[in-house]
Amino acid sequence: MDRRSFLRTTALAGTAAAATTLAAPEVAQGAITWRMVTTWPKNFPGLGVGAQRMADRITAASNGELTVHVYSAGEMVPALQSIDAVIDGSAEMMHGAAYYWQNKSVGLSFFTGVPFGMTSRELAAWVRYMGGQEIWDEIYDQFGLQGFLSGDTGTQAGGWFKNELKGIEDIQGLRFRTPGLGGQVWQRMGVSVTNLAAGEIFAALQTGTLDAAEFVGPFNDRALGFHQICKHYYVSSFTEPGLATELVVDKAKYLALPKHLQELIRYVAQSEYDQVPSDFYANDPIALADMVQNQGVIVHRSFPDSILEGGAKAAKALLGEILAGGDPLTKKTAASFVKSLNMLRTRTEATDLTYALAREKYYDISDLG
Amino acid sequence: MDRRSFLRTTALAGTAAAATTLAAPEVAQGAITWRMVTTWPKNFPGLGVGAQRMADRITAASNGELTVHVYSAGEMVPALQSIDAVIDGSAEMMHGAAYYWQNKSVGLSFFTGVPFGMTSRELAAWVRYMGGQEIWDEIYDQFGLQGFLSGDTGTQAGGWFKNELKGIEDIQGLRFRTPGLGGQVWQRMGVSVTNLAAGEIFAALQTGTLDAAEFVGPFNDRALGFHQICKHYYVSSFTEPGLATELVVDKAKYLALPKHLQELIRYVAQSEYDQVPSDFYANDPIALADMVQNQGVIVHRSFPDSILEGGAKAAKALLGEILAGGDPLTKKTAASFVKSLNMLRTRTEATDLTYALAREKYYDISDLG
Repeated sequence: MDRRSFLRTTALAGTAAAATTLAAPEVAQGAITWRMVTTWPKNFPGLGVGAQRMADRITAASNGELTVHVYSAGEMVPALQSIDAVIDGSAEMMHGAAYYWQNKSVGLSFFTGVPFGMTSRELAAWVRYMGGQEIWDEIYDQFGLQGFLSGDTGTQAGGWFKNELKGIEDIQGLRFRTPGLGGQVWQRMGVSVTNLAAGEIFAALQTGTLDAAEFVGPFNDRALGFHQICKHYYVSSFTEPGLATELVVDKAKYLALPKHLQELIRYVAQSEYDQVPSDFYANDPIALADMVQNQGVIVHRSFPDSILEGGAKAAKALLGEILAGGDPLTKKTAASFVKSLNMLRTRTEATDLTYALAREKYYDISDLG
Repeated sequence: MDRRSFLRTTALAGTAAAATTLAAPEVAQGAITWRMVTTWPKNFPGLGVGAQRMADRITAASNGELTVHVYSAGEMVPALQSIDAVIDGSAEMMHGAAYYWQNKSVGLSFFTGVPFGMTSRELAAWVRYMGGQEIWDEIYDQFGLQGFLSGDTGTQAGGWFKNELKGIEDIQGLRFRTPGLGGQVWQRMGVSVTNLAAGEIFAALQTGTLDAAEFVGPFNDRALGFHQICKHYYVSSFTEPGLATELVVDKAKYLALPKHLQELIRYVAQSEYDQVPSDFYANDPIALADMVQNQGVIVHRSFPDSILEGGAKAAKALLGEILAGGDPLTKKTAASFVKSLNMLRTRTEATDLTYALAREKYYDISDLG
């Protein structure tokens, strides 16, 4: 396939579409229409909503000079073919999560979140100031793509369990829905890990095919109804310390845009890296309080120590294997990640963590409001 | 003073300036030039750099349709008159910190950071999703202004001390430079609190006028040289859990802008609410490691328990007084802040804090990178 002619055709089609769908007085000269595919269902709380909001922000702030139309998962292509839609020119941009494309490069996982890895603040610091973006660019350059951070769930919940966990012995053979590198970590601890799409989890828990499941956190999980079957909710994940979303664009088309639109896309994506976690930080506690007060959910802050310890050991072993093997770019990614995390965590642990501990221990203002 | 005629004159002057200072091919039709005053010295790490970068981002992403010129502290007006420059029409926008304007409303402190208050993530969630912005708007509407979050230092350092602190008895009468509500909290614990401008602190420590000082955190503090005199660095503040910066605009002029430029300003400000903390999170640990390795600085993660406990008690008493007295809008702000913090902290403490503790305890990868 001739990529260049594809590019021209798509650009022309985009312009024509813009001319017909927007009222004349609102269209800036040379208006362009771009298609954004996403890996999220329409109106999916936090993430799907974020993709749509990002498209609307680009359209509004560019005064329609760049109008973005969103195609939710399945509307143009299935969720996990979204990146291919950008590569083959069916869409100009995509909103998803880099770790979905591990089959292209394991290194991409590090730009979403890895077990015992970076928090959302640490990830942004690495990407923006410690060489992360440059390595990410090297990976995506192989596919003619450009990635930007575009959101983050914050630290996710650990998951829903039918029975309380007393120690690592309780998870042997447990059938747990948990995907990705996190799933590999649980598997190394003796868990029987399966991956199921969001819509299939509830039924599998109900029929007994699954004993436990993790998805995102209270805000998303409540909508899927897991609390109706599993009452034990472990609210702090060690495998997903954050889940960053990405905006991926066709790099050639992006660089062919007027410079100010390139800048605008960059800043809108970054604005969403704050807006999306704000949404989760505001709505997770509300959803959790509702499930505790009205649905009999039992909250466990932490997995038992033996599970945390086993998880850390397994996560480190996995990281060591990535550092030792695999393609050069993945090794380079992992090495930069490790070096940066070792530096960044000194601030998180000495300053942020210390503050949160002191506030929790000494500052109870529940009687004030 | 006739505010309307001021407005017209300024808008015209702005247009004329744009026409003469920008090369013709780069100026969009109807280009506007705005002046941004800031409370920061030129090139001040993190914050002054952030103000300039925000101006550049607005100019670039609008293709020069809105060109922003920055005036650092003292260039147009002294730092602490910046907001008055926007009120009287000398400038269209300002980059600073809301708590500088406590003389206008104590409620403004809550949009920067208060003792034992919200972290940067919690603050954004409150402002964007839990009614914070609406209350902030009510306060600034009184002055014809509109505020946006525009950056955050993250949790700051507690300060530099000549001697190690063993308990609350060691701070009685101690001459400590620490401003704002945080200063009031230390004062209630028996400290002799003074405020000095950044440039005067070093000499005061040297001559013995001061025993201790806090400023921001390692990245900023190193530049001021406190470590040459005070070797004990307490790296976690309980009085400044974050320091959010603000972008303040003349609301009438803002609403008179084309809608897409209003949106653009909003998203660029939000992008900086991620960029600025990324800068601090990346650079604080590097600065701290340098001072520890090369300057003999002794790091203390936490103040002694009796100081934390006394600080929490004093901070709560102060908050109680704000809730009980003062103007109605300040009370409304404080009540919304308390209610939201009580909800938000459940996530921070159960999920984020639990994760950070587990990672610190079990996941040592210092040997991997």
